[in-house]
Amino acid sequence: MKVYGDRRSGNCDKVRFALDYLGQPYAWIEVDSVQGGTRTPEFLAKNPLGQVPVIEFSDGRCLAQSNAILRHVANGTQLLPTDQWVSAKIDEWMFWEANNHEFFIAGCISCMTYMGMSKSDRSPMRVERGNQALDIMERHLERADWLVETGFTIADIALIAYTRQAHLGGFDMNLRPRLRAWVDRCEHELGLKSEEEAAATP
Amino acid sequence: MKVYGDRRSGNCDKVRFALDYLGQPYAWIEVDSVQGGTRTPEFLAKNPLGQVPVIEFSDGRCLAQSNAILRHVANGTQLLPTDQWVSAKIDEWMFWEANNHEFFIAGCISCMTYMGMSKSDRSPMRVERGNQALDIMERHLERADWLVETGFTIADIALIAYTRQAHLGGFDMNLRPRLRAWVDRCEHELGLKSEEEAAATP
Repeated sequence: MKVYGDRRSGNCDKVRFALDYLGQPYAWIEVDSVQGGTRTPEFLAKNPLGQVPVIEFSDGRCLAQSNAILRHVANGTQLLPTDQWVSAKIDEWMFWEANNHEFFIAGCISCMTYMGMSKSDRSPMRVERGNQALDIMERHLERADWLVETGFTIADIALIAYTRQAHLGGFDMNLRPRLRAWVDRCEHELGLKSEEEAAATP
Repeated sequence: MKVYGDRRSGNCDKVRFALDYLGQPYAWIEVDSVQGGTRTPEFLAKNPLGQVPVIEFSDGRCLAQSNAILRHVANGTQLLPTDQWVSAKIDEWMFWEANNHEFFIAGCISCMTYMGMSKSDRSPMRVERGNQALDIMERHLERADWLVETGFTIADIALIAYTRQAHLGGFDMNLRPRLRAWVDRCEHELGLKSEEEAAATP
């Protein structure tokens, strides 16, 4: 399997995290989405939606959308229990992430990192909606260790990608102790260094 | 099954369309999301995410997120083929809808209908991203009758809800003949009157 991705993208992190966790082999092909790498005719032939990540199988079949990829690669593994109700609750979090979390939080991170702007330059709408999303997660995690009660799943992987970077977008994680603890648990489960540890590594 | 929904919401339409198509019985409970109906303690106990639609089973279990509901109610029906690759391509469209279509198009519709503002008051970002989304669908439908090659599925239902209303948000459907034809096909399949027919009905 080939994975076309941009190392700076949380959406691409999701796919790496899941494949590494499951021990599934893949070749990573770096695509610079900021410099037009997702707009070339070759790339658009793989994904007409013009976005990374994309996975490609040896027979040429391609699949895009990070959460759709998570669902596909996790089929039949512990990351996606077969129980239909558990699977539905995983979907609930993943569609919520796609619709109510990623756009707002990733947008603020992008503003303050790639675009080099300041906290006050962030879109007020994205700040408000991003804070709402993080507060919803904080409240849920007051009574749960993982997003879905059966344990660590692709719902956690879908949400950890941008949540662990939320401080880079100016969101205050110190206000959200349960969420911070969940981020730590996910990073431990995935064998990741925290963003802070990674920054401190020479 | 109870469905909590707001009749004006395209996300709630998705659930109605699927259940009616499948002939699954349900009781519709109208919730006025504009007037705070999704912020009451009773409603938040059903869906802490504070949004319609929500489905509730007789044992009290609740599920939110329109596309997660579509996946759940379509399990084992012709609207969600069991083939894993077909299912993955359906997910690809549904996550794309949640992340790249709904927010932009529904936002423009809301601006020009509920909020009573004019075309020029729409967010330029939402207009641009909405047009991009409709153009991607138009290009895909140049070589396909349905979003996924096997036929009419929940991917079409997820996308028809707001696409058939896009003109109410100031988007020009006359520029997109393939998309218009797909809207007609979906409405025919679902036994719906078109938005124009409905408006002309006394």
